[in-house]
Amino acid sequence: MRSMTGPRIDVVYRLRVAPEQAAQRARLLAIEQSIEMPPEAVIDRRVLDDVLAGVERIERQADGTSLAHLRLAAETVCDDAGQLMNMLFGNCSLQADVELVDIEFPSSTAQAFGGPNLGIDGLRRLTAAFGRPLTCTALKPIGSTADHLAGLCRSFAQAGIDLIKDDHGWANQRSAPFPQRVAACQRAVREANAAAGHRAVYAPSLYGTHTQMQRQIELARSHGIAAFLVAPLVCGVATFSALRREHPDLAFIAHPALGGIARIAAPALLGKLFRLFGADAVIFPNHGGRFTYPAATCQDIARNNRAPWHGLRPALPVPAGGMSVERVPELKREYGADSMLLIGGSLLVARERLAERSRAFVEAVAAVGEATP
Amino acid sequence: MRSMTGPRIDVVYRLRVAPEQAAQRARLLAIEQSIEMPPEAVIDRRVLDDVLAGVERIERQADGTSLAHLRLAAETVCDDAGQLMNMLFGNCSLQADVELVDIEFPSSTAQAFGGPNLGIDGLRRLTAAFGRPLTCTALKPIGSTADHLAGLCRSFAQAGIDLIKDDHGWANQRSAPFPQRVAACQRAVREANAAAGHRAVYAPSLYGTHTQMQRQIELARSHGIAAFLVAPLVCGVATFSALRREHPDLAFIAHPALGGIARIAAPALLGKLFRLFGADAVIFPNHGGRFTYPAATCQDIARNNRAPWHGLRPALPVPAGGMSVERVPELKREYGADSMLLIGGSLLVARERLAERSRAFVEAVAAVGEATP
Repeated sequence: MRSMTGPRIDVVYRLRVAPEQAAQRARLLAIEQSIEMPPEAVIDRRVLDDVLAGVERIERQADGTSLAHLRLAAETVCDDAGQLMNMLFGNCSLQADVELVDIEFPSSTAQAFGGPNLGIDGLRRLTAAFGRPLTCTALKPIGSTADHLAGLCRSFAQAGIDLIKDDHGWANQRSAPFPQRVAACQRAVREANAAAGHRAVYAPSLYGTHTQMQRQIELARSHGIAAFLVAPLVCGVATFSALRREHPDLAFIAHPALGGIARIAAPALLGKLFRLFGADAVIFPNHGGRFTYPAATCQDIARNNRAPWHGLRPALPVPAGGMSVERVPELKREYGADSMLLIGGSLLVARERLAERSRAFVEAVAAVGEATP
Repeated sequence: MRSMTGPRIDVVYRLRVAPEQAAQRARLLAIEQSIEMPPEAVIDRRVLDDVLAGVERIERQADGTSLAHLRLAAETVCDDAGQLMNMLFGNCSLQADVELVDIEFPSSTAQAFGGPNLGIDGLRRLTAAFGRPLTCTALKPIGSTADHLAGLCRSFAQAGIDLIKDDHGWANQRSAPFPQRVAACQRAVREANAAAGHRAVYAPSLYGTHTQMQRQIELARSHGIAAFLVAPLVCGVATFSALRREHPDLAFIAHPALGGIARIAAPALLGKLFRLFGADAVIFPNHGGRFTYPAATCQDIARNNRAPWHGLRPALPVPAGGMSVERVPELKREYGADSMLLIGGSLLVARERLAERSRAFVEAVAAVGEATP
């Protein structure tokens, strides 16, 4: 078996083919995700030795699928996040019989991307929340006025919620354009914090291109905002990675929108890749809500977010998607203190009693004795 | 049935649920893709009237699935391409029982995005190719040296191929970094054109963020390059749309990397959305090659690329993915003159006889009598 000189990325794909076809399928996949042409047509020997991806082994699964372990040459990735996605799953995302299951990176790649700026410890310092999960809520619905959102911010901050974020659907809607929205929300949070002695943090949602997001960050910084919500697959992972690198003092919360589109296993995409690219916190659809990820998948996402990994800071897993105040004890038991619990609609259903329900959320999370360390 | 004031986007989703559950599933989907909270908790009446998405109708299909026709409020999209993807399929991409099948836009949204700069006519003028499909090939494999790529460019341009593009895997690899690669390739193409009296066009692949791509475009322009390859789902559709808008004189060829196969129907994604965002040509996996899109899907992609649509310029469909010189007559019959035939590996397998095979490709496409107009 030839050796690939230079660092390599180890990738596991699930092949949905008859077991006797798995070896050939894996060979074709290795070609597709590297040189993308018949190897017999390659004239440059070095390309065949160092660039053509290889098949390490194939493991037949009980369900009839096969797990193919491939090695990809790190040089094809050039330390660019978009290019990493391209090489991992660009063309084969268009093939129905392949799924991306897991990835392991060499240290050089991990260092090149760098992981979270703040990580869990940094988020705790930012929100002054220690020894328990962080609490988070979302400003909904889109289409609201900036005044309405500011009112929500006041209630949430007064209640002691740690992080108040834009709903991921906020961009620059005319009902509350970005400049007005962030000014109004940040002011409301700041005033409520001062009155109540709290440390709530407001995180607006960024939209558009890297260039546009830089301008939004600049404007938000001028209001003292230090945390942002981004959907890496919507804006492009290279954009997300660049923002994180360019703003080492800011917190970036990743939202999984558009993440189901390419058949990348959630523990790889949300657990590892989002952390690699720099998410300080990773929102994921928890089981039992509006989404149907199995509990084991959710546990794997959280584990990949937090596990020791090439010295990258851990990311805070954020189970979400229809969570309720009533589930807080269960969420604490399942995810432990190093998590952030995101509850949106379940607070807002309280309507005029929003403040009371928000306080109930905060108190349920702060209650001693229920978090597994 | 309430009316939504303001322009609306009509979206068709396939629901993989039991038929008796389809109505409820569609209602939940409408909520998820708009206000994302229980409607009874919404205090602002206007949001319920104008922002909450609605279900127009549900059509049970013979295969047991249902097609749900929803109307989304265009105001939630704010004319931002990423936000459009977010509202169309952001959260529900994370749900296994939903697929995005088709979209229809109001004229205001179509005009806001603008469609292709050059379109088919513009690409023909750029390449001086009329009355027949354009010919296209790719510079492979990644990992080659700039000298090697320049040699390929010379052969291809001498043979008369219209458009020579980077393989989509090219970014900034050290074997042929972007600056060296584009300089060497463009020089080779220019010299070969001068010697042979041809008009071959070289299109490099852009990578990274919007900011990085702008710099790459600037550098490439300095060499006289006027066409580029971009993978909109890798870099983010907002980035792709912005580049197109900022460079009205340049041609943008869209590559479907990361596009997936099952969750957003290809005729919607590659046929409509890529064109809406500004692709002058859209590469898609043709049937019978390395990919398994059915022929009907491929026909639908090409039809959506070219059909009269809100006055947007038509895009050139580019059937690709393991096409061969031998299939040229069939491809011409199937896609007609207004297409671009992309053949990569099938030329390179000729190795030392590359020039001869490239000429055979060009001559097969130019042969009279086989294209349906």
